[in-house]
Amino acid sequence: MPDDFERMWGDLAPVGRSASSGGYFRQPFTSPERELHAWFGEQCTARGLRIESDDFGNVVGWWDIRSDDPAVLTGSHLDSVLDGGAYDGPLGVVSALAAIDLMRARGVVPSRSLGVSVFVEEEGSRFGLACLGSRLAAGAISWDVARSLTDRDGVALGDVVAGGTSSLLAGVGTFVELHVEQGRDLVDRGTAIGVASEIWPHGRYRFDFTGAANHAGTTRMEDRADPMLTYALTVLAANEQARLAGHRATFGRVSVEPNGTNAVPSKVTGWLDARCATDAGLAELVAAIERQAAERTEVDGTSLRLTAESVSGSVAFDPALAAAVAADHEGGDWPIIATQAGHDAGILSAAGIPTAMLFVRNPTGISHSPDEHASIADCLVGVSALADTLERLTR
Amino acid sequence: MPDDFERMWGDLAPVGRSASSGGYFRQPFTSPERELHAWFGEQCTARGLRIESDDFGNVVGWWDIRSDDPAVLTGSHLDSVLDGGAYDGPLGVVSALAAIDLMRARGVVPSRSLGVSVFVEEEGSRFGLACLGSRLAAGAISWDVARSLTDRDGVALGDVVAGGTSSLLAGVGTFVELHVEQGRDLVDRGTAIGVASEIWPHGRYRFDFTGAANHAGTTRMEDRADPMLTYALTVLAANEQARLAGHRATFGRVSVEPNGTNAVPSKVTGWLDARCATDAGLAELVAAIERQAAERTEVDGTSLRLTAESVSGSVAFDPALAAAVAADHEGGDWPIIATQAGHDAGILSAAGIPTAMLFVRNPTGISHSPDEHASIADCLVGVSALADTLERLTR
Repeated sequence: MPDDFERMWGDLAPVGRSASSGGYFRQPFTSPERELHAWFGEQCTARGLRIESDDFGNVVGWWDIRSDDPAVLTGSHLDSVLDGGAYDGPLGVVSALAAIDLMRARGVVPSRSLGVSVFVEEEGSRFGLACLGSRLAAGAISWDVARSLTDRDGVALGDVVAGGTSSLLAGVGTFVELHVEQGRDLVDRGTAIGVASEIWPHGRYRFDFTGAANHAGTTRMEDRADPMLTYALTVLAANEQARLAGHRATFGRVSVEPNGTNAVPSKVTGWLDARCATDAGLAELVAAIERQAAERTEVDGTSLRLTAESVSGSVAFDPALAAAVAADHEGGDWPIIATQAGHDAGILSAAGIPTAMLFVRNPTGISHSPDEHASIADCLVGVSALADTLERLTR
Repeated sequence: MPDDFERMWGDLAPVGRSASSGGYFRQPFTSPERELHAWFGEQCTARGLRIESDDFGNVVGWWDIRSDDPAVLTGSHLDSVLDGGAYDGPLGVVSALAAIDLMRARGVVPSRSLGVSVFVEEEGSRFGLACLGSRLAAGAISWDVARSLTDRDGVALGDVVAGGTSSLLAGVGTFVELHVEQGRDLVDRGTAIGVASEIWPHGRYRFDFTGAANHAGTTRMEDRADPMLTYALTVLAANEQARLAGHRATFGRVSVEPNGTNAVPSKVTGWLDARCATDAGLAELVAAIERQAAERTEVDGTSLRLTAESVSGSVAFDPALAAAVAADHEGGDWPIIATQAGHDAGILSAAGIPTAMLFVRNPTGISHSPDEHASIADCLVGVSALADTLERLTR
């Protein structure tokens, strides 16, 4: 079966890849991502999987089994962050298809239906809200709210997808997502596979700093209201707060108006990505950053408006399921580890579907970067681990 | 003649104006700016001025006089910064045309040719180099260098204009530019018109900070190489250095890769606009900012590459000409004042053409902003002052 995995991996490699950076630009409802969806449909058809789509662009390929037992769903996503890596998302989809191939090669016939899912806009790289497809499928966000989300060009989600309803999760009793690890926990433990215990609470917060545009040459420093200064102080404050307390805080995206070299900006918008081990810690972290930003507006003569664009509370995956998935393997149990990254699995778990995640070792820990990597050997161990897990769950 | 000025001003008001901000987007060789150039051609034709263009997009409307004496040129530019004001540039062009109308109404016939000039890309808002058109006309930059300058979409100057040579300045003995003041010196003095003594040395410097992209959630703070932090520290350092020493330093433009909320950036590029009263002071200011930036790269694990995109040395306008222009007016001499803003007049002066600048009072001092303003009454005093000046110079 290694051939199947490597062939599929080779199919995906060129799609949406930047020749200059080597990273991927697979934003939802753009042509590279649509090409991946078409490819997924072909793969399902070739395996005799029945394709079911919902009104939001999510899709499942079903291995239908006549049974009254709740189905098992596995899969991930095909979209990427801007200039992202090859593994985040596609590894889970390709591994799911390869795991079905492996189960069939082993002669396994599930006792209940088994589906391979692809949820759209997991990264939130286009419409700003991560796990948008799984939120819509699970009813965690209404279409009336989601349809108005806009991308950087002002295009609304409602303009690119019909919207409506989803019944993809109707008969689903368990969800399993395999994902490349985004960290070095498994490297440190010397093991290829881990199982998720929990996802840290995390959120995206938009900081709009407003000042007054003016000439960069003729305006005396003391006569300015420069929002770039308030932004800069906030970036450093966020880093310091997170560093001191063992949290995570990042300003990775900024937008400046008018963004001209010889003009003091009128407005600077920065997006904070913040994550903590606890919900209370996350709230405290954001409040501390906001406090320092607000203090600095007094110095700079600027103003701040803070908007929480999305906040995802702590997710504890079903502990009994995690223990069952992790136990009794050749060479010992798989370790059960926490992650700071959000996933569709977190949305489905929060929606009440017992959910498990498998992680595949990432030798550098780097993710959301062209340098993201996992060895082919580890990926194949991942396929085998996923096949084992699905076999147990559909027995 | 007030009617002529106000009619022309009304012609220009809607062109390239943003409905949301009220500011202007008149980037060189884009349709709003081309519309302004077409309008200028019509205005010249209506006045019987002979139109002469060069290969770079610069244009002069000539009031030809049969004489061996060197010509007098007046004018300014029609392009704007991003989201700029109405006055910076167009005021000098419209006032020049209105001044010719006024001279003719007064029965003045010049003893030498008088031209109205429009130089392209004065702001450097598209191709990054301010006073690009006048630099090319004056031979201060070669076409071989300029043709490769690119805009933010990668379009080269050589793709939008033919390039070649210019003889616009061949017979020019004096240049006069009228401009809205970008500061409050004239407000403080209670006078509508001033004459320029000098332009501060100034430059644009690109700071490329390189780090390593990674996942904003899973990457521990201590494992990051985040160039946004180095950029933020540099922004604050530049402000502090300039504030303490009475210089000017601004980061008004920034570009981030990949600029995604949930990814530590791989690269942050910031553009520094720096200005000082002396050439030595400017070099010291930039060196001090670079030193602090470089120190911070050690902390952040990032790297810095600094590129001086343009540096304009101190310009002292012809003092005898300034004194002659400023002297003997009703209500006393016009004040002679320094400016921190670059102008085409500075390029022509540095190229050896005796040059003068007139400033028109700006009640708020705000420029490079939709809020830039001058009263109609002051603008008309400016037209009259320019007509007086041209009459003296062409007598």
